[in-house]
Amino acid sequence: METLVKLIDKKLDEYINVNYPKTIFEAMKYTLSLKGKRLRPVMCLETVRMLEGDINTAIPSACAIEMLHVQSLIHDDLPCMDNDDFRRGKPSNHKVFGEAAAVLAGDALLTYAPQTIIEQSVNLSSEQLIKIIHEYTKAAGVYGLIGGQIADIESEKHHFERDKSDTLSYIHIHKTAVLFRLAVKIGCVIANAPDETVLELDDFALKFGLAFQIYDDIMDEISTFEEMGKTIGKDKVADKLTYTSLYGLDNAKKKCLELIRECHDIIDKYGSKVFEEILGIVENKLEARTNC
Amino acid sequence: METLVKLIDKKLDEYINVNYPKTIFEAMKYTLSLKGKRLRPVMCLETVRMLEGDINTAIPSACAIEMLHVQSLIHDDLPCMDNDDFRRGKPSNHKVFGEAAAVLAGDALLTYAPQTIIEQSVNLSSEQLIKIIHEYTKAAGVYGLIGGQIADIESEKHHFERDKSDTLSYIHIHKTAVLFRLAVKIGCVIANAPDETVLELDDFALKFGLAFQIYDDIMDEISTFEEMGKTIGKDKVADKLTYTSLYGLDNAKKKCLELIRECHDIIDKYGSKVFEEILGIVENKLEARTNC
Repeated sequence: METLVKLIDKKLDEYINVNYPKTIFEAMKYTLSLKGKRLRPVMCLETVRMLEGDINTAIPSACAIEMLHVQSLIHDDLPCMDNDDFRRGKPSNHKVFGEAAAVLAGDALLTYAPQTIIEQSVNLSSEQLIKIIHEYTKAAGVYGLIGGQIADIESEKHHFERDKSDTLSYIHIHKTAVLFRLAVKIGCVIANAPDETVLELDDFALKFGLAFQIYDDIMDEISTFEEMGKTIGKDKVADKLTYTSLYGLDNAKKKCLELIRECHDIIDKYGSKVFEEILGIVENKLEARTNC
Repeated sequence: METLVKLIDKKLDEYINVNYPKTIFEAMKYTLSLKGKRLRPVMCLETVRMLEGDINTAIPSACAIEMLHVQSLIHDDLPCMDNDDFRRGKPSNHKVFGEAAAVLAGDALLTYAPQTIIEQSVNLSSEQLIKIIHEYTKAAGVYGLIGGQIADIESEKHHFERDKSDTLSYIHIHKTAVLFRLAVKIGCVIANAPDETVLELDDFALKFGLAFQIYDDIMDEISTFEEMGKTIGKDKVADKLTYTSLYGLDNAKKKCLELIRECHDIIDKYGSKVFEEILGIVENKLEARTNC
């Protein structure tokens, strides 16, 4: 996994050259270069490797998924959204570059991602490129991330179109699971996976996404700034709809570990050390906790 | 032209169905449905018609260009950018839906545009689709609209990386001309135009874009809210770098009409009534003025 993360960091840096006007390129590169786990691009590359595709073919798409993820973080942190001053342990984008540049840096990443897929991909047919970009637009847009984010914001205002449990599940699927599913789906397109594999790995990515969001909800209650690199305890202050607020800490931990076990059931037969390592991150952190 | 505008209005409405979560779809549709001149999509369709392509093939792309234009208006109007309360004669997006929803509605349109091109286009090859989306990403991103917008914002803060006249020309090319060029370029891809036609029409679109921005700068000084549907005189208050502030009203009018004449020189041989009508909008309004 470490090798893949290094490769992604290097390529993300290479793909964006600082040009005129400097501010916008610097704002794009700033949040993108903050050290993260790079889970989504790693999952994309590992899917391709596991299915015996060529991972070099997948690097631009993997980086595009991270650009989209970072775009969503930059916009989510804005004062008019979650108003977060820190991200990955550093001041968030608008704290460094101002709100206007942060809005524009997010917009820029949102279109630079598909531009990178088109310009940097090698050995992909036009049909594959169109499929990848189509999946990208669905995941990034109103039927994906944006839908999840607006439902999240509305729920903070206690404005519910559906009941709380359906709303929570909609938010988790659209705001979090969506990018893991995108990573695995693009991997399948690049490796020309058969339909049953696509369905199976999509189910894996969905379950992992839900587990990951519950894990994040738990950590917001019991973790520290040092461990997570962002402000902790904000969900409770904002009286936010989360898995822990709706079902309690114990049930959250139980559900999360159950989902991770189901992920193992799907993925173990592929014999992927990287996916084992990713599942382990959530598993080990939760099992070691005595405070939940 | 009126027929084309009606067709675009109808299709824009059809392409976005209100779904869950309602707020985001309503915010997207709100600014999109405000009556505008629809110059960019009309220019796309007319390019295709003029080059004897099938305009039905171009409707999704033409609408996508308008979605991108409206996205840029929604984000430009935000309090952290130009802070405009009105657009096309109505309250701007964030005044109706709040800042968070306005940021997200812009994000949503930015990806719904290429999604619409992929999902709604018929009779286009994958190669044509990739070319269209590539042009879209370049125009929408950091080497297009976003670059122009950030240079504009920096210039308001009197922060110049280049001299004023170069900066102004960069802003006009990237913030305004870019979408007219995109419209014509996509039209050329759809109509399979030969390279020399692409270059000639690109030159036309560039010149029209520059003329249009100078016209807009002039109108900001001498027009009224009723005529333009937006707050007037803001450039002067913000001490903004505009063609009129740098070269004076008389020179601006002269330059604008000169560019329009050059546009006529290029386009007249194609015998397009629609392009004549578009050039006429700027021409007639300026020539009728005695106050500049």
